[in-house]
Amino acid sequence: MLKLVIGNKNYSSWSMRPWLALRANDIPFEEVFIPLYTNDKADKDRIVNFSDSGKVPALIDGDVTVWDSLAIIEYLAEKYPQAKLWPEERARRAHARSISAEMHSGFMPLRNECGMNLHRPVGAVDLSDDARANVARIQEIWSDCHRRYGKDGPFLFGALCGADAMFAPVVHRFRTYAIEVRGEAKHYFDAMMSLPAFQEWTRAGLAETLVIERFETV
Amino acid sequence: MLKLVIGNKNYSSWSMRPWLALRANDIPFEEVFIPLYTNDKADKDRIVNFSDSGKVPALIDGDVTVWDSLAIIEYLAEKYPQAKLWPEERARRAHARSISAEMHSGFMPLRNECGMNLHRPVGAVDLSDDARANVARIQEIWSDCHRRYGKDGPFLFGALCGADAMFAPVVHRFRTYAIEVRGEAKHYFDAMMSLPAFQEWTRAGLAETLVIERFETV
Repeated sequence: MLKLVIGNKNYSSWSMRPWLALRANDIPFEEVFIPLYTNDKADKDRIVNFSDSGKVPALIDGDVTVWDSLAIIEYLAEKYPQAKLWPEERARRAHARSISAEMHSGFMPLRNECGMNLHRPVGAVDLSDDARANVARIQEIWSDCHRRYGKDGPFLFGALCGADAMFAPVVHRFRTYAIEVRGEAKHYFDAMMSLPAFQEWTRAGLAETLVIERFETV
Repeated sequence: MLKLVIGNKNYSSWSMRPWLALRANDIPFEEVFIPLYTNDKADKDRIVNFSDSGKVPALIDGDVTVWDSLAIIEYLAEKYPQAKLWPEERARRAHARSISAEMHSGFMPLRNECGMNLHRPVGAVDLSDDARANVARIQEIWSDCHRRYGKDGPFLFGALCGADAMFAPVVHRFRTYAIEVRGEAKHYFDAMMSLPAFQEWTRAGLAETLVIERFETV
């Protein structure tokens, strides 16, 4: 069976992405949980037993190890074509990969200032101009997708796909840090909040008792 | 014809990646050059004429616009299967995508401390511990690839592929900042330095006269 190596569900936004892609498509897998944020060196030592990269997530499929959220989603898209992790239409697929890659390499100010932390009581923080620009860009992406593909379903490209998995942790950030989601961008936010796999991850994260002091809890 | 929107060849490492994937495979395309680093707002205003993301690179193929280096490489891999931008064998392709995604989202300390700048006279700088860890990890990736696939050719997975394009700018960083490349990692470094498309980009970058003060030139 596939093994997915993940970190704390409360904090590990990168782990959440491929987990969601698997679970939302009912693809069976075994979770390998590595508690993170205990100590950088110790964390890495535990991960390298599974992946040379020293980072979660990693997917182990027999003798193949794939790491990094986006590479795992590409691997799953190939292995489980029925899950349609990328849209079937060429231009739509290119768009889905473009925003997924933009998420994958960008939005550092928002990520740094609003780290995913499911335990955190909801409340706003002062955001830098750069983080505010990130928020606006993300909502522009979601709105644009809704205008173009909303007729086909509630997710970014109609049916759930890999791009939804890539943006899912942002839904938690917006919720936890009380960032208003406006207009057409709200469709994706609401669809993700209602997704059973998203709710399952969230419940499991909230049930974790490992709370790391370095994360702000207000 | 395909249009590739790119920034300054001297500085824009993200632009270099898909440019190299296209040129090394003799795929015809038109370059749309947007001089960057003049002023953040003005830079972005010029780019959004081509891509909503406000970032280079972007690929325009008729009415499809694809942005972000990695999404462009995926698009080209689908459109030009003969270019073999991903290895044909499943496990090797998964490995190529893993290290490409690792490059795409990581190595920030090295990127920040050793910005690509072809004009810069060769010379070492003091690197942080995190940047030194990045250097070691990259050389470990290159060495591991050589051990596994070196029998099939001089590039990371034997024949040139998308992963080589993703790591190409690091070759310039290592060269410019006088970072020693050791052992088996040297095979990739040397292969990339000898690649005609890499040399063509480099010559064009060195011929650019737009020198931006904010970039260190020693």
